[in-house]
Amino acid sequence: MNIAILGFGTVGSGVYEIIEHAATAETKALHVTHILIRKGKEKKLSIMCDDIKTILDDPQLDVVVETMGGIEPARTYIIEALQAKKHVVTANKAVIAKYLKEFTNIASENGVHFYYEASTGGGIPCIQGLEKALRVDVIDKIYGIFNGTSNYILDHMHRYQSTFDEVLKDAQHLGYAEADPSADIDGFDICNKIRISASIAYNYPITDQFPVFGIRNITKEDVQYFSSKGLVVRLIAETRRKGNSYSCVVEPMLFNENQIEANIQNNYNLISLHGDTIGELKFYGQGAGKLATANAVIQDIIDIMQKKTHRQCTFDHTMNYDSSFCKTDYILRCNPSLLPLLKELSYDIVSSSYFHIKQIEVTKMHAIMNEILKQDATAFMASIYETKEEQSC
Amino acid sequence: MNIAILGFGTVGSGVYEIIEHAATAETKALHVTHILIRKGKEKKLSIMCDDIKTILDDPQLDVVVETMGGIEPARTYIIEALQAKKHVVTANKAVIAKYLKEFTNIASENGVHFYYEASTGGGIPCIQGLEKALRVDVIDKIYGIFNGTSNYILDHMHRYQSTFDEVLKDAQHLGYAEADPSADIDGFDICNKIRISASIAYNYPITDQFPVFGIRNITKEDVQYFSSKGLVVRLIAETRRKGNSYSCVVEPMLFNENQIEANIQNNYNLISLHGDTIGELKFYGQGAGKLATANAVIQDIIDIMQKKTHRQCTFDHTMNYDSSFCKTDYILRCNPSLLPLLKELSYDIVSSSYFHIKQIEVTKMHAIMNEILKQDATAFMASIYETKEEQSC
Repeated sequence: MNIAILGFGTVGSGVYEIIEHAATAETKALHVTHILIRKGKEKKLSIMCDDIKTILDDPQLDVVVETMGGIEPARTYIIEALQAKKHVVTANKAVIAKYLKEFTNIASENGVHFYYEASTGGGIPCIQGLEKALRVDVIDKIYGIFNGTSNYILDHMHRYQSTFDEVLKDAQHLGYAEADPSADIDGFDICNKIRISASIAYNYPITDQFPVFGIRNITKEDVQYFSSKGLVVRLIAETRRKGNSYSCVVEPMLFNENQIEANIQNNYNLISLHGDTIGELKFYGQGAGKLATANAVIQDIIDIMQKKTHRQCTFDHTMNYDSSFCKTDYILRCNPSLLPLLKELSYDIVSSSYFHIKQIEVTKMHAIMNEILKQDATAFMASIYETKEEQSC
Repeated sequence: MNIAILGFGTVGSGVYEIIEHAATAETKALHVTHILIRKGKEKKLSIMCDDIKTILDDPQLDVVVETMGGIEPARTYIIEALQAKKHVVTANKAVIAKYLKEFTNIASENGVHFYYEASTGGGIPCIQGLEKALRVDVIDKIYGIFNGTSNYILDHMHRYQSTFDEVLKDAQHLGYAEADPSADIDGFDICNKIRISASIAYNYPITDQFPVFGIRNITKEDVQYFSSKGLVVRLIAETRRKGNSYSCVVEPMLFNENQIEANIQNNYNLISLHGDTIGELKFYGQGAGKLATANAVIQDIIDIMQKKTHRQCTFDHTMNYDSSFCKTDYILRCNPSLLPLLKELSYDIVSSSYFHIKQIEVTKMHAIMNEILKQDATAFMASIYETKEEQSC
């Protein structure tokens, strides 16, 4: 099987490395024949080139692996590769979240495959787990820790009583967080991953029109306060389904200290799904990183080689966004002068700056939070997972 | 796809139920055409019969689902079905652990498939996860909570400070434990599951010649003592590989209270594997139960229907049992008069009846425990997971 790798960053070089050091019969059957690098960059390997056309014109080429990241030129190259009747495997969550239906249609028209296991959960086989579960069950809930950087920060703040800034610097030093950590700490990375998962689960392309609240504002004192109540905070993406309605949210959630989510350490991910007959399934592993993510890319390539077709999604079902069936409790920290903004809600004042809001619709709470942030830019909130469970929404 | 179910107990009736209430296009394509019940039992459904020959002679039949359990007549029926060129799917761990290579060979000779996802981890797709991981990595460790009954007992003893007998009665009342709980609490059920997993991982049929120590002797005081040290006990099956050597053991293991294993509640299972590029992967879910286990059976049937061939094992590799690369610490409780039996070991006396033994080979510790049990039939021991990790064995 002949493979071209577009982009030679962390994941692209990981794919090359696993194939070069092939440990199994399956990986020994894979050959990297082209690596696309940026124009002007030094061609350190003879198989490197800077022209996509050379690659797509090669009749011997079977699979294009896109690991450039970002929207363009990734989108154009993916489409051109599919139209050139090359299978495409990608780890690029941003471009998939936006163009999943388009890519799938073009792949189908050209009789090739478009696979993207590595885009969600890194090395964790959660896309396949979801696709498999959907063969038997309607999946009515997907949730979990989809981002290693934010989990590293929250876990270390909890276990080592550190401040947000201390842990962020530490994570940047270790290469777990980028110089600009916004995508990870503000929830946009997770947003892409839950969109991909929910789109597969509901066979409907999920837009980004749902509430997202990150962990930028969390303080050492917040974590200590939660801890004093036996609670541990994690940044969670969640989608739930009820008939043809779905909810989606990205927000900090509080788990009891003996729940599994509360005990996911460092930069690991944990992705859960629920179906009628299978019950609750959870997948744990490295959600990012060179070799684990490259492993997922290579698994997709081997599926293509062994003709193990993935479940076909057409994304032509119709679903409505509706969070009214998802009510939950929140702990809110804000300047007490803003209490009038909560006036129509049921809440307890649990300390001078922490308020426990009862059974509020997710979308409504995020709208109120946006109002609060205008006057207290440091405010923070987290939902309480258990209180949502009791709703059986 | 036409299916015969052999045996109509928990799993067999679950398979029938999921197909009758088919929620997906895939399950709607499945049809149960025969159910084999015991001679003399009432035929409540028109598709029930008590003669295997009628079933195997049906040229329209595609798949035989064996859910009778036990060795005979399961083994004979599986072989006859394969020889009649029917695919076979089974959840019967006892017969697979013993005859995996034989069944696989006969299936291969007859051009049909023999699949057994439900045999290990119930509804958890861990056999597939393992087979997939093996396409890229050498798997050098598989371990986990493979038995829901023993986990229910240990978890409830820990969380509710109950005695073994209280929780066992409770579990029997809820249907989680059998009237004779021996297979679950003495580790034989888990033994079958780790044999199946290790046989796949090493492509070598693993025998039952490895140390097994269960939880029959654990007391409320043991659990309290572990708890006072921040440790939680779980019954674990583990296999490790180093080159062509492997170790296998079933024994209680102690985890730090914030490790994931320590937080697996009730009768859930957690199965972990480790490979070079994928790192650590964990799969969590219902390891038993009617619909979850039936779900796994149906997933295998759908794989056959969709021609998604599983990874081919030939079981013709050669491996040697050798636990010398696996040393670990143990906490032992026994009558102090037996201390002379430990005379060649390095150990600390941590209380009047608890002893902390340092870095001992697994097989050696189990041999000493067998000597101790001859004089103190109530003795208990558990290894300390972390101390094994440090060995990088």
